[in-house]
Amino acid sequence: MANIGQEEDFDAAKEKALKIGAKKCYVEDVIDEFVKELCFPAIQSNACYENVYLLGTSLARPVIARAQVAVAQKEGCQFISHGCTGKGNDQVRFELAFYALQPSIQVVAPWRIPEFYNTFKGRSDLLDYAAQKGIPVTSTKSKPWSMDENLAHCSYEAGILEDPDTSPPTDMWKLTADPILSAPNEPEDVVIEFEKGIPISLSSPSTGTKTDPTDLFLAANALARKHGVGRIDIVENRFIGIKSRGCYETPGLTILRNAHIDIEGLTLDREVRALRDQFVTISYSRVLYNGLYFSPEREFLESSIIASQKSVNGQVRLRLYKGNTIVLGRSSKTEKLYDEQESSMDEIGSFEPNETGGFIKVQAIRLKKYGQMKAEKGERL
Amino acid sequence: MANIGQEEDFDAAKEKALKIGAKKCYVEDVIDEFVKELCFPAIQSNACYENVYLLGTSLARPVIARAQVAVAQKEGCQFISHGCTGKGNDQVRFELAFYALQPSIQVVAPWRIPEFYNTFKGRSDLLDYAAQKGIPVTSTKSKPWSMDENLAHCSYEAGILEDPDTSPPTDMWKLTADPILSAPNEPEDVVIEFEKGIPISLSSPSTGTKTDPTDLFLAANALARKHGVGRIDIVENRFIGIKSRGCYETPGLTILRNAHIDIEGLTLDREVRALRDQFVTISYSRVLYNGLYFSPEREFLESSIIASQKSVNGQVRLRLYKGNTIVLGRSSKTEKLYDEQESSMDEIGSFEPNETGGFIKVQAIRLKKYGQMKAEKGERL
Amino acid sequence: MANIGQEEDFDAAKEKALKIGAKKCYVEDVIDEFVKELCFPAIQSNACYENVYLLGTSLARPVIARAQVAVAQKEGCQFISHGCTGKGNDQVRFELAFYALQPSIQVVAPWRIPEFYNTFKGRSDLLDYAAQKGIPVTSTKSKPWSMDENLAHCSYEAGILEDPDTSPPTDMWKLTADPILSAPNEPEDVVIEFEKGIPISLSSPSTGTKTDPTDLFLAANALARKHGVGRIDIVENRFIGIKSRGCYETPGLTILRNAHIDIEGLTLDREVRALRDQFVTISYSRVLYNGLYFSPEREFLESSIIASQKSVNGQVRLRLYKGNTIVLGRSSKTEKLYDEQESSMDEIGSFEPNETGGFIKVQAIRLKKYGQMKAEKGERL
Amino acid sequence: MANIGQEEDFDAAKEKALKIGAKKCYVEDVIDEFVKELCFPAIQSNACYENVYLLGTSLARPVIARAQVAVAQKEGCQFISHGCTGKGNDQVRFELAFYALQPSIQVVAPWRIPEFYNTFKGRSDLLDYAAQKGIPVTSTKSKPWSMDENLAHCSYEAGILEDPDTSPPTDMWKLTADPILSAPNEPEDVVIEFEKGIPISLSSPSTGTKTDPTDLFLAANALARKHGVGRIDIVENRFIGIKSRGCYETPGLTILRNAHIDIEGLTLDREVRALRDQFVTISYSRVLYNGLYFSPEREFLESSIIASQKSVNGQVRLRLYKGNTIVLGRSSKTEKLYDEQESSMDEIGSFEPNETGGFIKVQAIRLKKYGQMKAEKGERL
Repeated sequence: MANIGQEEDFDAAKEKALKIGAKKCYVEDVIDEFVKELCFPAIQSNACYENVYLLGTSLARPVIARAQVAVAQKEGCQFISHGCTGKGNDQVRFELAFYALQPSIQVVAPWRIPEFYNTFKGRSDLLDYAAQKGIPVTSTKSKPWSMDENLAHCSYEAGILEDPDTSPPTDMWKLTADPILSAPNEPEDVVIEFEKGIPISLSSPSTGTKTDPTDLFLAANALARKHGVGRIDIVENRFIGIKSRGCYETPGLTILRNAHIDIEGLTLDREVRALRDQFVTISYSRVLYNGLYFSPEREFLESSIIASQKSVNGQVRLRLYKGNTIVLGRSSKTEKLYDEQESSMDEIGSFEPNETGGFIKVQAIRLKKYGQMKAEKGERL
Repeated sequence: MANIGQEEDFDAAKEKALKIGAKKCYVEDVIDEFVKELCFPAIQSNACYENVYLLGTSLARPVIARAQVAVAQKEGCQFISHGCTGKGNDQVRFELAFYALQPSIQVVAPWRIPEFYNTFKGRSDLLDYAAQKGIPVTSTKSKPWSMDENLAHCSYEAGILEDPDTSPPTDMWKLTADPILSAPNEPEDVVIEFEKGIPISLSSPSTGTKTDPTDLFLAANALARKHGVGRIDIVENRFIGIKSRGCYETPGLTILRNAHIDIEGLTLDREVRALRDQFVTISYSRVLYNGLYFSPEREFLESSIIASQKSVNGQVRLRLYKGNTIVLGRSSKTEKLYDEQESSMDEIGSFEPNETGGFIKVQAIRLKKYGQMKAEKGERL
Repeated sequence: MANIGQEEDFDAAKEKALKIGAKKCYVEDVIDEFVKELCFPAIQSNACYENVYLLGTSLARPVIARAQVAVAQKEGCQFISHGCTGKGNDQVRFELAFYALQPSIQVVAPWRIPEFYNTFKGRSDLLDYAAQKGIPVTSTKSKPWSMDENLAHCSYEAGILEDPDTSPPTDMWKLTADPILSAPNEPEDVVIEFEKGIPISLSSPSTGTKTDPTDLFLAANALARKHGVGRIDIVENRFIGIKSRGCYETPGLTILRNAHIDIEGLTLDREVRALRDQFVTISYSRVLYNGLYFSPEREFLESSIIASQKSVNGQVRLRLYKGNTIVLGRSSKTEKLYDEQESSMDEIGSFEPNETGGFIKVQAIRLKKYGQMKAEKGERL
Repeated sequence: MANIGQEEDFDAAKEKALKIGAKKCYVEDVIDEFVKELCFPAIQSNACYENVYLLGTSLARPVIARAQVAVAQKEGCQFISHGCTGKGNDQVRFELAFYALQPSIQVVAPWRIPEFYNTFKGRSDLLDYAAQKGIPVTSTKSKPWSMDENLAHCSYEAGILEDPDTSPPTDMWKLTADPILSAPNEPEDVVIEFEKGIPISLSSPSTGTKTDPTDLFLAANALARKHGVGRIDIVENRFIGIKSRGCYETPGLTILRNAHIDIEGLTLDREVRALRDQFVTISYSRVLYNGLYFSPEREFLESSIIASQKSVNGQVRLRLYKGNTIVLGRSSKTEKLYDEQESSMDEIGSFEPNETGGFIKVQAIRLKKYGQMKAEKGERL
């Protein structure tokens, strides 16, 4: 079992494992690794799947799998197992990780074994079985959905959420305050500082200043949870080609990612940003979503991300309020791509405005030809 | 002058124009054209520049330029003019449009003529001149920024905003209620329906049901303005290579675009979406931003957008509240890519879960080799 | 069985089929469909996989599969079969096509049934079996490789070619003359005309003028085969993640594709070309290679290809000689994007050269800032 | 003046410069820098503009400009000049380099000064003037085109070549033997070895083994020139939006690039290759073509190229013959992504072929839905 920051009673979990037949139970703490190796690169690259999903579950899988394989190796195991269903993304993410980390490993996936899934035709059969055998489970019939939690997020899927037109019930959300019903009426400001695209400091009156990666991440979480930041609800495309509906809350990561996008405006070159947005961000997000973390392409894309972030140094001030992250301003002590005088409408700056006439006329050469041809053909422009 | 939906006294503007020496003054209504030909394709393609900016100003320029050239042609003009500065994007957008629409036209751009810009070294000189000559202007020294408004948005730039760390003053925003200070405490729900990615109906208790494009857009605006939806604040990269800070409010477009992104989750194929996101959306947004609307590439990209949207049919329910657009659910009567049974964790559906084992093992062939090579080289995975 | 232009004795094949137990044998002529629906779009899009492979095998699969499913439907079959191995691309291409064309179909793939592949551990076991049972086969131990032929190409794989450093034997190549040993010493010229990117006419002294798609394609083949055009030898990445070595000859398609690339230089807008090259060509080629022809993404990409080719009208003159296709010149009666006067170094043309100074200076704004920052940091530029 | 490997009498050039009024004349040898910093990365990235052009001229500009600025700095110059016309790419390439390398520099570009270009309305006026003043020039009326040569290539443009349907005259080509008329009848084999995508050794009977970058490049040139390799003829799109026709010969670079593409097949992961092809190669080529070498985006893209090439180690055997570069085979001592046993059709290898059934069935989930929807709508698949 991995301690990846979920709010869970690990002692109870351990006890339960041993009680239901496990020979040994490891609970591995992978929180720091998760923050530094997965969450921070995701922030640095603005990772996002299908415009909306911040990949909270996907980010956790590689570190869990790595810890699991390490235990398997320590114990000399030939087999490794997981409890993912045969229809979802997580089976793919875990197993691709297992196979890359130890190519000789063999996977036991009960939910894909016909004897198993023909006996337990779904989560409700399993809940019945657990009830019958006295095995305590979090999913209940009164909470008819499944959850997955880690330091960065909590997901809600299945059950009543399978109807994509059913709104998530108010009491479903676990991590964040309800922006409408319970988030505070007073906004709160926070300052986040970045170095090479990585958050290195977070300050707010209620959290103080945090610089340790995990402390910083936890402080971001605390602020975002309080102010109801980071809820989403989408229908997404799973790697295996099925559409599925998911509700996610990703509090701290949402704040940090929004701040990162903002500081890039001030400090990142236009063309590097455009190339990174179009090629790296989208590809990297897909790689993470599809469980291809331990792959040459992830390694390649991460090198590109790092190369793109050399100048992303500076701080952003945000105001948090009932689900909003409002940018108040940003600054950088070291980067000077933004030049107030040059940008100003009140000063000439370092170039003569009449140069722009030539810039436009040269751009227009091609368009004039196009306009002429459209006119000759009588087509509307 | 174009009536593109900005809140302006057109009679006063006309009177002012004639008073300060214009021979004739045309005020062309381009609202419907703006909504149908520019705003709707922008929604259909999820257009967005540098992750944040919904292109409100860029969208207006092509229809204004087209109307202006039409008047120039009617009046037999050889010259055409605009009041954009020599440092911004709008000069480029207007002039590239002019040149494509009438390749023989000659442009008079006072802000790029040395005699002019050496006399008026910035907006404050101009405000002095206007004050001195009794010419009424909206920008004042007490409102030290410049604004540009149309049906879709209002922008705020220059003046005190040129310091990217100065927060926009509370009373600057013109269109939207302040999410913190003045938006209502009661949320409001709205239902938006799409056909081929275009909004065809909007319903809410306060607006009723609207189906005419402009009425629908105005209703979206009314709702979003009331609930403080659509404010942003960014440092962006202008086409001419200067970074600049802009504050924008884009109320109705924000709602409609968010709803469109959501309905795509339910109705658009994964691979078509991925190709469209990576290649079309980003390229189309850049083309619009850079003023290349009247170009072969815009025509090409628009054909691709239309080809991608055949199945984007259905409706989305949103809740608006203090700056938030919260998805409540979505449905489609005609599209069946989402299959509740197939997606369900509680039913087997149309494929055997054990097939996925093969799917994963084949994906793993390449990764196992990679893992082996890393292990042989002693590199950490 | 499909007649897709391979040089084969179809009567003998039919006889063999019936003799070894087939109840019925259909030989479906799919040549015209293959040329018009697959080969021509491939030319129109410059399709190419991994820089080198013109997709000759991939192009044939969709039309074969469609004909096969049509026969299966006519005969009321529940099952459909193919003879592809379990390690290659073709099993994927056939089956994905079968499943899309008739989702209820069930596939019998002997090479993936353990009883079968444990009995026949490779092609040599199978050759033994065929010899023993008197079944005539083309692959022999003296021709130790497997071939696949259609109107567009012939492939050679497996056997001795599995060592990627073994040069293909001189007598392996079936379609084309050896550029070194047997191609004629006299070059031959050919003129190819395109309309919307599709070849509509081919003329050469030895073939005369052909305008019917299949006739035109056959004439291109005849010329290319005679002059040794279209051989390649690569190590490629199969869809299932295995690298494999293939030798291919694709005679006529090579000529027609090269001519198409050339005429695009004259007739296609720069930006449309750039977008098409980067997004459509590469994605479309991957879709074809991976057997995803019957998919929403192929439909989407083909719409984009068509939208890109409106202006690709004109003719190209090529000289064929011992493996080379040398461009002699090109022209277009209708398209005028190329403007000799404007391009000329000997005339001023329609714009003042001094405008370019402004074009460059504006482009330089961003680069000067970059240069300054590098200088301040003491980094070499 | 730069010695960038062109075949030129530098003493005569120096003498001519001083005779016609230069105060000093520097001839800077930039050959090694050109090979190592420009040509090798171009090979490593498979750089190519618009499918055909290997960027021979573009590659030379950055090193020439850097040497020129170094001299300007040494001499304390405020101004720098070049002889490019106002319609081409090279003015942009030189000046963007000048401005990045020394932002304060001022450029004198005679061909963009109206007094100059109104006096000399084209190359023929200038040839007249040169003749009149006794200034020796290479372009003559009997050689009615302009040339630009460096170690990697020679270009031919303008004059009679401005008609894109005029075939280049046989005696125009300077570097390479005519593949039809004069290349030898005997082929010649060469072995090229790569490390991290960079050529580190070239061996052939006639050149022996070369490992020094410049020696290796010269040997590649010698072989390719002898066998007529590397000629092309295209209509391309200049950065300023004009189409122009160019004939280029790029002998050694063509061989080395073809070998590099081939070794990547054996040694580069599929997904890294696909990302690199689609995003890096095309973008990097455009950056080079457009003269944006000294830019953040070039720096970024080069980091990505290097990250992609870690495993590109091995050797390729090529046969050169009358314009052809025929791959004979390839091998790698260190990289093991290609696995003969796994690839073999004659052995089972490390995975069970029956796994592929699941791979295909999972891929088919999405396509079956698509097929069903098309069938329901009565649309042909």
